[in-house]
Amino acid sequence: MREQTDVGVVGMAVMGQNLVLNIERNGYSVAAYNRTAERTREFVEGRGRGKRIVPTYDVEGFVEALSRPRRILLMVKASGPTDAVLEAIFPLLEPGDVVMDGGNAHYLDTERRFEAANERNLFYLGVGISGGESGALHGPAIMAGGSQEAYAAVASILESIAAQGRKGACCAYFGPASAGHYVKMVHNGIEYAIMESLAEAYDLMQRGLGLRAREIADVVGGWNEGELKGYLVEITEKVLRREDPETGKALVDVILDTAAQKGTGKWSTQSALDIGAPSPTIAAAVFARVLSSLKGERTAAHAVLSGPPTSLAGERTAAVDDVKSAVLVAVLAAYAQGFRQLRDASAERGYGLNLAEVARVWTAGCIVRADLLHPISEAFLAQPDLPLLFLIEPFRSLWEEHQARLRRTVVRAREGGIPVPAMSSTLDFVDAYRTDRLPANLLQAQRDFFGAHTYRRVDREGTFHTEWEAPE
Amino acid sequence: MREQTDVGVVGMAVMGQNLVLNIERNGYSVAAYNRTAERTREFVEGRGRGKRIVPTYDVEGFVEALSRPRRILLMVKASGPTDAVLEAIFPLLEPGDVVMDGGNAHYLDTERRFEAANERNLFYLGVGISGGESGALHGPAIMAGGSQEAYAAVASILESIAAQGRKGACCAYFGPASAGHYVKMVHNGIEYAIMESLAEAYDLMQRGLGLRAREIADVVGGWNEGELKGYLVEITEKVLRREDPETGKALVDVILDTAAQKGTGKWSTQSALDIGAPSPTIAAAVFARVLSSLKGERTAAHAVLSGPPTSLAGERTAAVDDVKSAVLVAVLAAYAQGFRQLRDASAERGYGLNLAEVARVWTAGCIVRADLLHPISEAFLAQPDLPLLFLIEPFRSLWEEHQARLRRTVVRAREGGIPVPAMSSTLDFVDAYRTDRLPANLLQAQRDFFGAHTYRRVDREGTFHTEWEAPE
Repeated sequence: MREQTDVGVVGMAVMGQNLVLNIERNGYSVAAYNRTAERTREFVEGRGRGKRIVPTYDVEGFVEALSRPRRILLMVKASGPTDAVLEAIFPLLEPGDVVMDGGNAHYLDTERRFEAANERNLFYLGVGISGGESGALHGPAIMAGGSQEAYAAVASILESIAAQGRKGACCAYFGPASAGHYVKMVHNGIEYAIMESLAEAYDLMQRGLGLRAREIADVVGGWNEGELKGYLVEITEKVLRREDPETGKALVDVILDTAAQKGTGKWSTQSALDIGAPSPTIAAAVFARVLSSLKGERTAAHAVLSGPPTSLAGERTAAVDDVKSAVLVAVLAAYAQGFRQLRDASAERGYGLNLAEVARVWTAGCIVRADLLHPISEAFLAQPDLPLLFLIEPFRSLWEEHQARLRRTVVRAREGGIPVPAMSSTLDFVDAYRTDRLPANLLQAQRDFFGAHTYRRVDREGTFHTEWEAPE
Repeated sequence: MREQTDVGVVGMAVMGQNLVLNIERNGYSVAAYNRTAERTREFVEGRGRGKRIVPTYDVEGFVEALSRPRRILLMVKASGPTDAVLEAIFPLLEPGDVVMDGGNAHYLDTERRFEAANERNLFYLGVGISGGESGALHGPAIMAGGSQEAYAAVASILESIAAQGRKGACCAYFGPASAGHYVKMVHNGIEYAIMESLAEAYDLMQRGLGLRAREIADVVGGWNEGELKGYLVEITEKVLRREDPETGKALVDVILDTAAQKGTGKWSTQSALDIGAPSPTIAAAVFARVLSSLKGERTAAHAVLSGPPTSLAGERTAAVDDVKSAVLVAVLAAYAQGFRQLRDASAERGYGLNLAEVARVWTAGCIVRADLLHPISEAFLAQPDLPLLFLIEPFRSLWEEHQARLRRTVVRAREGGIPVPAMSSTLDFVDAYRTDRLPANLLQAQRDFFGAHTYRRVDREGTFHTEWEAPE
């Protein structure tokens, strides 16, 4: 009988391979399995050569290769493929074995699988892993949900492979069942909104102010030395600076302008709607991708629907400064809405999330890592139930300092016909949030008019209905 | 044995009562049933006195009171209560009997119930009914989905109680299973967006321009004589004109500014996300209600987060004219997005929707009825697969004529710190739709950078990946 391994990984796409290498590098032997054997063989004989990685070519062999309690990490596609693997593996496992789903599963799927594992006395963890390919290899951020007992059985492994932040490993147990996947889903919603804000800034500087990609790279590089310092800003500079070897143009200029929106960003917005969390900037970012995907229609519409000249008013250097402020407030809104949604989801779904710990885990390894997450973590340490980041320092002062420039940027965009849904919905969001009297009284009157939905009054308790059609 | 009735109605809340009276007035005898007998008794001895309405006090008696094939209309709360009624009634029915759900069921619930009825050889129709209390009594718009055979068995009744439009009864069969409830759901999404546009206009005129409710009523009354003529504009004028007898103030001024968003508007946005339909204005309207509901937080935030003075720049009469244009384009965007969503849902879910017929059914009886629906119906008659209303006349010219005033309105709102999510997202929506080159190329580069998601190029076919971190 051959030696048994410490951990098993199912799914040898790039993320799976990189996690295997990361786990092995941290002192564990790993069994590798993939539905198609060829991919496993190639990996173990290639990138995995000379390491303590054991290739397996069927589910039974994979399970047998694991020491007990078995610790299995799934890195396969969400939905169908994950269910197929679980169906094959669950009957081969024994009580106390731990299955971790490291993919982007929908949180309701994770709840269902968690229950199915429970019925078999197996441990199941929904584990959000962020950091892309590079993070998987060098240290991702890891967000786990399930039972604490299951987490205890794998914590040492997960914490050893995670990114190291200023305050320890960027890996934590967040709560029962789907808590980890929910946190990862909202992480991705925030990611959508930050990326959209940066894309709008690029559009404003390119179409609106006539800057070339390299000039925009210089601007964005400057942002990465201030409050906006973070991974997405950093890679945006690198992207803008890259030249296309074939054409000599900036590579970004020859990339097609259509982005997909299936998956976590969409789910994050759908869940915000379900729990009544105010996440309009994240939603706007998702719909911006939907519109981008309608490339053929947009090209046709371009010839039919006119707009003003896209060149923006104002002095260029000042306008670029204003764009930075717009990005800063939009990025802050993305985090503020995401953490607000986590707070509401935690209350609604019983996750018991520690938002300071979420922010801490996001400070390294993951896609939304940024310097802002340090004061965000401090803020939730000081006030765990804080409703919205904008309400306290240093974020309140960021709003006060940058709102005028955000307004100017959005005004210029409107006048130039350049869409800025993330920046614009950020302004609508904060302007609504800081308004004590919104026009929803009119909505309530309308609803009472046609549906007798009743309304409340500002001057006394109770619910009221008016016979609107009848004269007094 | 007593005489049998033509139709049975379950649920004697106001909508149910009014539909019973409407059906009876149109020549049918009706059996009425409600879970609590007292409500049935009160109704039949009160509003129903002297009419061919038979009260029944248990499910068995209700079913026995119906001639065959039985035709039953449920007007009970969606979800739990509807399932409870169906569980009690299904076993008592016989093949060929027709059950119509007239409530606002989620379309997936309707699909499930449709299947359950099919298994028992019963007919099931998901029937969207719009028009509020008054429509239920005098003639609602009716949107049916299920089997055509089932519809044929009830068509004469439904068409007789429906509102009469210029081109016949505002009632139609739209497609299989949940088609009717889907159409009604999107109707309500459009309703959310139109209401929010009107609320923003009210806010701009009141807070921004200092008009009193009665003055705003005069303005809105004027709108109801032009392109904006429609039910929601009409009731908005009436609402704004109504005086509170207790305080002598405008009644709208003493109504609390919090609106709910549970239900159809939310579902409409969630489904738009699922099928990738661009409905950002409808989504913005839902999130505006979410923010309105956070009244306590808003009041607290008002003291913490500053903004510019809300008084709007510009001459008042011109600014009011600009507001009208903003509402007009936002309302058009609400219809355009709603019909686009129906088009996409029809393709995705196999409804086979006739959009010209949807628009025709909405011309009378329902909450979104408006003069605009006549040219909308004509547009889809001429081009059944039209992607977006803005692309053809007369809507294209509305955009060309009013876009500058919409831009000015949104700019003023930004400068005054007044949130206008519906107007603003309308501008982002059309500006994105008419842009042949959006900045999604940057998103694709970012996604390829961290996740190796690959990208396409503008200059040749294929998918490409760049090793962004490595120097060329």
